[in-house]
Amino acid sequence: MTVMRQFVGEVLRARRISEGLTLRDVSARARVSLGYISEVERGQKEPSSELLAALASALEVPLSKVLLDVSSLLEVEEAAEANLASISSIAPSKVSVSAA
Amino acid sequence: MTVMRQFVGEVLRARRISEGLTLRDVSARARVSLGYISEVERGQKEPSSELLAALASALEVPLSKVLLDVSSLLEVEEAAEANLASISSIAPSKVSVSAA
Repeated sequence: MTVMRQFVGEVLRARRISEGLTLRDVSARARVSLGYISEVERGQKEPSSELLAALASALEVPLSKVLLDVSSLLEVEEAAEANLASISSIAPSKVSVSAA
Repeated sequence: MTVMRQFVGEVLRARRISEGLTLRDVSARARVSLGYISEVERGQKEPSSELLAALASALEVPLSKVLLDVSSLLEVEEAAEANLASISSIAPSKVSVSAA
């Protein structure tokens, strides 16, 4: 399962790349350490609301748009997990039938 | 300015109320302390991705939907701030005109 902060990192990274910015550029603009931004992009650090706002501002994207993109990625993940759950719910019932 | 976690708290609280659940109910379902959930709802604590997922699950709402609602609230806030910025950008130019 992918947790939310991994999608947040993916969305921020994709935006940075599409803007042709380096980690160093974003670090200078947002006044956040390069290492920290790198960890956020890799989904290793949970960014605070203030940090997210600063990063979105540095990337010239509304934070609402970042969250919208994260929401979309999560929705795909949720649908995939619901599918997996319905598949695994078939298996036990087959087992119980063969045992009957 | 309202930061993201305040909107996260608002959305979670609205969902809990609409489901007719108490903080105690959500605390028991999500296995998170009641005080912590209360702080998250009031925008005082930044919930981790794992905690958010647990709360959304307890509230029987997809996390993607929670984020979508937070995104919508942020969008309204951003529009209001853009309006404020355009109003305050008028004032200085008027001052310079009257000084000319």
